[in-house]
Formats: sequence, C-alpha cells, structure tokens
Amino acid sequence: MSTPIKIAVIGAGSAQFSLGLVKDLCLTPGLVGSLVHFMDIDPERLAMIHRLAERYRDELGTDLQIDSTTDRRVALQDADFVINTASAQSHHHQRAIRELAEQYGYYYGRVNLGNFYNLRLMLEVARDMEEICPDAWLIQSGNPVFEGCTLMTRETSIKVCGLCHGHYGVYGIAQTLGLDLSNPRDLTWQAPGLNHNIWLTHFFYRGEDAYPLLDEWIATKGEEYWRTHVATRTHDIQMSRGAIHQYRMYGLMPIGDTPRRGGWWYHTDIQTKKYWFGEPWGGPDTELARPLFVANLEKRLAEMTRIANDPKASVIEAFGAEKTREQQVPIIDGLVNDNEGYFQVNVPNKGALAGVPDDVVVEVPAIVNKKGIQPLRVEPLPAKIMVEQILPEWLDMERELLAFKTRDRSMLLWSVLDSHQTRSYDQAVEVLEALLAMPGHEEMNEYYQFPPNSAELLLQKMKDQVTA
Amino acid sequence: MSTPIKIAVIGAGSAQFSLGLVKDLCLTPGLVGSLVHFMDIDPERLAMIHRLAERYRDELGTDLQIDSTTDRRVALQDADFVINTASAQSHHHQRAIRELAEQYGYYYGRVNLGNFYNLRLMLEVARDMEEICPDAWLIQSGNPVFEGCTLMTRETSIKVCGLCHGHYGVYGIAQTLGLDLSNPRDLTWQAPGLNHNIWLTHFFYRGEDAYPLLDEWIATKGEEYWRTHVATRTHDIQMSRGAIHQYRMYGLMPIGDTPRRGGWWYHTDIQTKKYWFGEPWGGPDTELARPLFVANLEKRLAEMTRIANDPKASVIEAFGAEKTREQQVPIIDGLVNDNEGYFQVNVPNKGALAGVPDDVVVEVPAIVNKKGIQPLRVEPLPAKIMVEQILPEWLDMERELLAFKTRDRSMLLWSVLDSHQTRSYDQAVEVLEALLAMPGHEEMNEYYQFPPNSAELLLQKMKDQVTA
Repeated sequence: MSTPIKIAVIGAGSAQFSLGLVKDLCLTPGLVGSLVHFMDIDPERLAMIHRLAERYRDELGTDLQIDSTTDRRVALQDADFVINTASAQSHHHQRAIRELAEQYGYYYGRVNLGNFYNLRLMLEVARDMEEICPDAWLIQSGNPVFEGCTLMTRETSIKVCGLCHGHYGVYGIAQTLGLDLSNPRDLTWQAPGLNHNIWLTHFFYRGEDAYPLLDEWIATKGEEYWRTHVATRTHDIQMSRGAIHQYRMYGLMPIGDTPRRGGWWYHTDIQTKKYWFGEPWGGPDTELARPLFVANLEKRLAEMTRIANDPKASVIEAFGAEKTREQQVPIIDGLVNDNEGYFQVNVPNKGALAGVPDDVVVEVPAIVNKKGIQPLRVEPLPAKIMVEQILPEWLDMERELLAFKTRDRSMLLWSVLDSHQTRSYDQAVEVLEALLAMPGHEEMNEYYQFPPNSAELLLQKMKDQVTA
Repeated sequence: MSTPIKIAVIGAGSAQFSLGLVKDLCLTPGLVGSLVHFMDIDPERLAMIHRLAERYRDELGTDLQIDSTTDRRVALQDADFVINTASAQSHHHQRAIRELAEQYGYYYGRVNLGNFYNLRLMLEVARDMEEICPDAWLIQSGNPVFEGCTLMTRETSIKVCGLCHGHYGVYGIAQTLGLDLSNPRDLTWQAPGLNHNIWLTHFFYRGEDAYPLLDEWIATKGEEYWRTHVATRTHDIQMSRGAIHQYRMYGLMPIGDTPRRGGWWYHTDIQTKKYWFGEPWGGPDTELARPLFVANLEKRLAEMTRIANDPKASVIEAFGAEKTREQQVPIIDGLVNDNEGYFQVNVPNKGALAGVPDDVVVEVPAIVNKKGIQPLRVEPLPAKIMVEQILPEWLDMERELLAFKTRDRSMLLWSVLDSHQTRSYDQAVEVLEALLAMPGHEEMNEYYQFPPNSAELLLQKMKDQVTA
C-alpha cells in the first residue's frame, strides 16, 4: 500500500540533505509515487540537485516524481509537507560578521544580534503556507529551530515540527563507555529541553541505570581521555571535559549541541576552548574548526557537482543505498501511513515540559502515527537546570522575538550589552552600529529603529562626554 | 477610640528606625496604650534605645508601653505585629567582603554570593512566629525584601508585608521638574514591579500625563543638569544620566533604588559611575559614597547616644514631633483601626502583576483597611521591561533561593560566574573559595557543599592543568 503525497523542500540547495531525502523517500515503500518539489533561489545548484535526484531515483529503481522551481509559492502549491532547510545567510557572511566583531574585541563573534534574516524567512514561509497549503505540516530543518519554531507557531496557524540531530549525542556517550549497541533497543534514554539545550534525564542500558557507568568512566578514565583524545570530527565534544564539567555543574549530561553552549567561561579564547573541548580544534565553534567544517561542506558539494556532471558515475556508489538517520521521512511515513515511530521533535510545549510556558517550542520525545505528532509529557527537569539553563535561554528567546516584533533597536543594543565579552557601554554601541552597517545588513539596519527620543542618549559615548 | 496592640521590633538597634517608630506610634491616636517590645542582640544599644524611647514618649505626652529584650522569642510572645529590621551583617563586614573581592579583580564587590545570613535570619524569625504568634503580621523592613519575603511566604504560613523607601523617588522627579506639590494629591502615580525594580507606569500631575514634562526636561535641561548638578545626598540619583538612560532603554522611568541596579555597564569603575550617577560620589554604591553613608549612620548614632546620656537634652528637639514618612505605623493603624490608606507594599503576587508567578513577592500599591492588605491588580508592565528587567531578576531570586534550599555550593559558583566582572573560570573558583574562607563566613562555608563527585572537577583550575 502506498499513499503518494507532495513534499516541498525550501532551500533544496542544501545538497547533502536533499539527496538524503530522495534516498529515504525511495527506500520508504509507503511513499512510492510521491512528488518532491525542490525550491531554491540558486537555479544552478537547483538544476544540479534535480539531475542527481533523478539519477538516484532511477538507480534505486523506484517511483518518485521530482520537480524544481525558484519560486517558493509554486513549490508550496498542493504540498502536504513542507521541509524548510533554508539559511538566509552564507557561511562566508557569518565569517565576515565574526571577523568584524573581532575587531571590536569579541572572540569568535560572541556578540548576539539575533537571527533577523532567518526569522524573517521562516515567517514568510509559514505565512505563504497559510495562504497556499494551510493544512500542510511544516518540518523545520534549519536553524534557529527554537526561536523560529516558537515564532511561527505563535504568529501563524501552521502545524510546525522542528528537527535537529543533536540528540544522537547520547549514542556518542554509549560508544565511549564501550556499551554494545548491536541491538539498539538495549539503550533506553530521554533528553528533553529546548533545542540545543537538552539534558539526559534517563539513561538505561539493558534495563539498568547507566549513569553509574558514566561516573565510573569519569573517575577512572576521564583525565586520561581529556589529555590524549584527539577528535577526528569538529563536533566530537560529547565526552569532552567541558561536557562532563556541565554534567557536574547542572546534574545531568548535556546532549549533542548542548555542551557547545554552556556558560561564557568555556568560550573566551582558543586556549580555553581547547581545554574544555579538546584537541585539535577546541570544538566546532572556533576559528580553527569552522573553516574546516565549511571546507568539508564545499568539498562534498564539489564531489556532488562532479558526479552530476559525469553521467556515467554511480550515485548509489557515491552516496549509498542505506537510509539516512534523518527523521523527516520516517515522521512523514508515520503521519501518512500510520507507520508508528518514536522521535525527538520540537513542538509547542502545551504542558509536555513542566515549568516552560505553553506557547514555547520544546524538544521532547514524541510518538508519531496517523493521529499526529504526540509529544510525551516528560518528567520535569531538575529545578537547577530549569533556573540555570532552560529559563535563561527562554528569556533570551523572548527578548529576540520581542525585538523582532517591535523592531526596537535598543533591544539589540541590550542584547549586545548582555554579551559577557562586552567590556563597556561604548564598545557595545560601536560594535552594534558597525555590524548593522555591514554590507548585506541593509534591510536589518533599516528594520530596527530606536524608540522616539531615545537615539541621542543611547548612542552617546561616555568617552566623548568625559573628555569634552 | 484606641485599640492597644503589641508590636515586636526585631533588630531594634537600628536606632533611627526605632525612634521614628515610637514617634509615629505616639502620634497615632488609635494606637495609644500599645506595647512596643524592642529586641536586639546588642544589649547596650538596646538599653540606649529603650531609654530614648521612654523619654520621647514622655516628652510627646502619650501612653505607650515600652519593653526590651535580647531574646527574640520573648519579644514575639503575644505580638500582633512583628517588624523585622535586623541585618545579620555589619556595614564593616560588608566592606571587608568588597575589599577581598577587589583583590580578585572585582570593582566594588560586584560578585554575588547571595544573602545567606539575612535569609537564614528572616526564616528563623518567621518560623519562630509560626510557633509563638502565628496570627501576627510580619512587616519586613530590612533587606533583601524581595528574596526574603518570597522565601518566608513560601516556607511558612506567616502573613508577610515587605516595606521599602524607594518609591518616594517619584517625588524627586516631581521636584526636579518644578511641580508644585503643596497639595500632594496633585500627583497621581503608580510604580509596580519587584522591590528595587519598580517602574513608573502612571505619572499624572493635576490630572494630566506628566511624562511629556519629563521628556521636555530631558531635551532642554538634562545635559546641563548632568554637567553641573552636585548631589548633597549619596542616594540622589533619581534624575541622573543613568536613570534617564534606563528610561530610554526600557521605556518607563525607574524609581528609587531601581536605577542603582540597571545593567553592569553603569557600574564598572568610579569614572563610569560618576558619568552615569553624577558627582561627587557616583551614586550610593561606590567606594567614595559608602564610607560617607556609614559615617553618617555612625554620626547619628553617636548623637543619639549623646542625647541618651544627657537627661536634660530634649528628644523632641533632636528628632522632631512630626510623623515620619515611614509606612509601618499607618499600615498597622489601617489594619487595626480601619483607618484606611493607600500604600506601596511587597506581598505575594497572586495575580496582581501579570507575567510574574503567583508565589513571587511583588511590589505593588495596596489599599489597607480592616479587611487587610489588598494589593491592586495593576496593569501589566510593558513586555520589554518584563523580559529585560523583571524576569531576569526573578530568575536571579529563584537561583538564590534554590541554592539556599539545596545548600548547593556549585550554584554559588554559577552565581559568581554569572557576574559580568568575572573574566575566567579560575577567577570565579578563587574568589568564591576566598570569600567563603573569610572570618565571619564559617557557617556559610560549612552550609554550602558541592554535590557528590563534583568538587574535584569543579575546583580544578585550567592554569594548573594547561601548564602541567
């Protein structure tokens, strides 16, 4: 039995992701005959993906309709699912932002202007959906998942589910502990929270609490591991000293992208980052790691382009014929064909995670079947994690969304002042105005305005006044 | 008609306060014949206050019973009202804390260890009351009002009302604007929030919105005032550049003690403090202002001692025969004699201020009469003030109370790390351990313990590891 549906992919130029999606769809019998409509603003990239996807489908020998467009509204027409993986700003632009901030004294761009361009894009997609395909599910697969999904579910009537890879970090723990996971069901775990801020509340191996195994590893092997382990992936920090330190600070293991956050003190300079997140890069968020990460993305893209341009190359040989570990297609299969599964999703809270307001998107486990995406009402997180980790980030999000809604430039200034690396009021004013004046930020610069009568006093610099 | 009652005063050695209380009681006909029971741990100071109070009463020619004790439980016996004005730590001890923190790189002690000794004292008083005078009202008149009143109302069944002077700051605004307040009813205002974090939502003069007058003052006279005004009181900052800057940042005027807080950027060094809070002291919280403030307290105490020791001196001549502007006695008069009044109180929220949990103590206007202390359900504060000012401080409070409840030393460490002046993890560990090892902090040092297995990693210093 198969139920053909239409899936629109916004930002389909994320080549790796789009090809994985095609593969997963081809390998999912219940979705045979479906239509994937790729949309991207880059026509060249889009054509390349389209060609590769068709060849992949043909090599896999299944039935999948593939279409592509540079017009978002065309892609959304008749969609049952919309997967948004678009990012409004390139890696190169993000690097330019970091380099400019560095000139004002910020290490690795740790000054927060929010996500204006991505939030605006997400909201535009959701609003287009309200008009064109109001019953479709939006599967948000690009960052910022937490802020963006909360914004979209507050401002539109679209059903939104955000997805992220971070929770797989729990398997990194199991692997380092040497647990045999040839039967994946031997591991029973739960890690709820907010996206990029999830905490391992339950960790059972073959029915026994596995936290004592972790504690033993820390006591007997931790120091040795931190002294000698050399990462082979920039994101390999799940067992770093910084992650374990957060476990000791907050009482539960931080999972996946969670240890990349933590307090400012993990992130002051490259030596400190190496101390907490290991050699050779100090984790994924450093001037050593990021160029490598971007170069790898570009290398993969070049490889895809090569294969796309070589009609004799085998796509299966290059990208495999095994399902990815992505959740998008299995969730769609669950919703459409009642092929039930258990997933980690980001959906409006509505009581699933105690202590977080109902209209905030939380990351929780969910059962997905024909009835829908049904979050589990998890046990409350420890009070310490709530007040030191979850609720402060909730407030960061509320400030970002309020600034976005009210277009209040003084809230951007507040956010820059709130950066732990800001040393003076003058510095905050200077870096804010410099970042807003950057090429590529024209619309953001125009969008955010100071409230009436406030610009003069807020932009005044102490150094000009005191020396005057 | 008069209803004699018993009022216990804990920390009655706050001489100025205790004498003011006696005066207000003597000048309140409805409370003639009442008993004031002074309690303090300093017998000498207590005896001095007792003598002065009796003479004051006699000079004022009214009927008031006065008793004193160093035993708190004796004072609480049969009390109808308990006024707690005690502070567990001397000004000199607070200075020693600041000086030690300064050695670790903190300007004017801006490192937050919480209020262990005062919270413990408040909770002991409230718990004693549960046992001895469970129906009495506790009027909390010493800091920290916000944290302490929230703690006591959560942990005990005692009725608590916290009081503070800060809201009178609104009259400082009116005065600077040159408004004629010979009829005080010409000014109609409201400034709700949390204690030391209140915001002028309504400001009417003779029925007209007076905010435009303030805006005009800022536009036409502000800069001149900030350049030339020289404060004659250390706390004279209501119209400072820093206060007006906060008005521009947050959209409403911060009242009273509120501008003493604000962001870290107002408080980095003495030059910065003078820029924001004026000459000659840079506001009340500097190394220039505080010794003067303490010296003034001591001067007043010396003057009281002189008068107490001179039986021929007139107490009225020294301290006047006009009611103080304190709210304690008028509130008691309202509750006991239905002599209704309108006050600014700190009571559990229960819906008075939207967006703040019910069990958090808020500062709001209240009608007080025989029915009780009845907070007004005020209009919500602007969202910007909620997310930038009220809710962050709510979280600070929740963290402090959770640390106090769980005795978790790692939460103190988190709090030190959260100080904007902390520059590295090692620095936080060092200043925390140094402060806890100070003379006078033995019990706090013993009270707060690291969670099991966490001390080793949390106390590890990067510099020792990296150079090793």
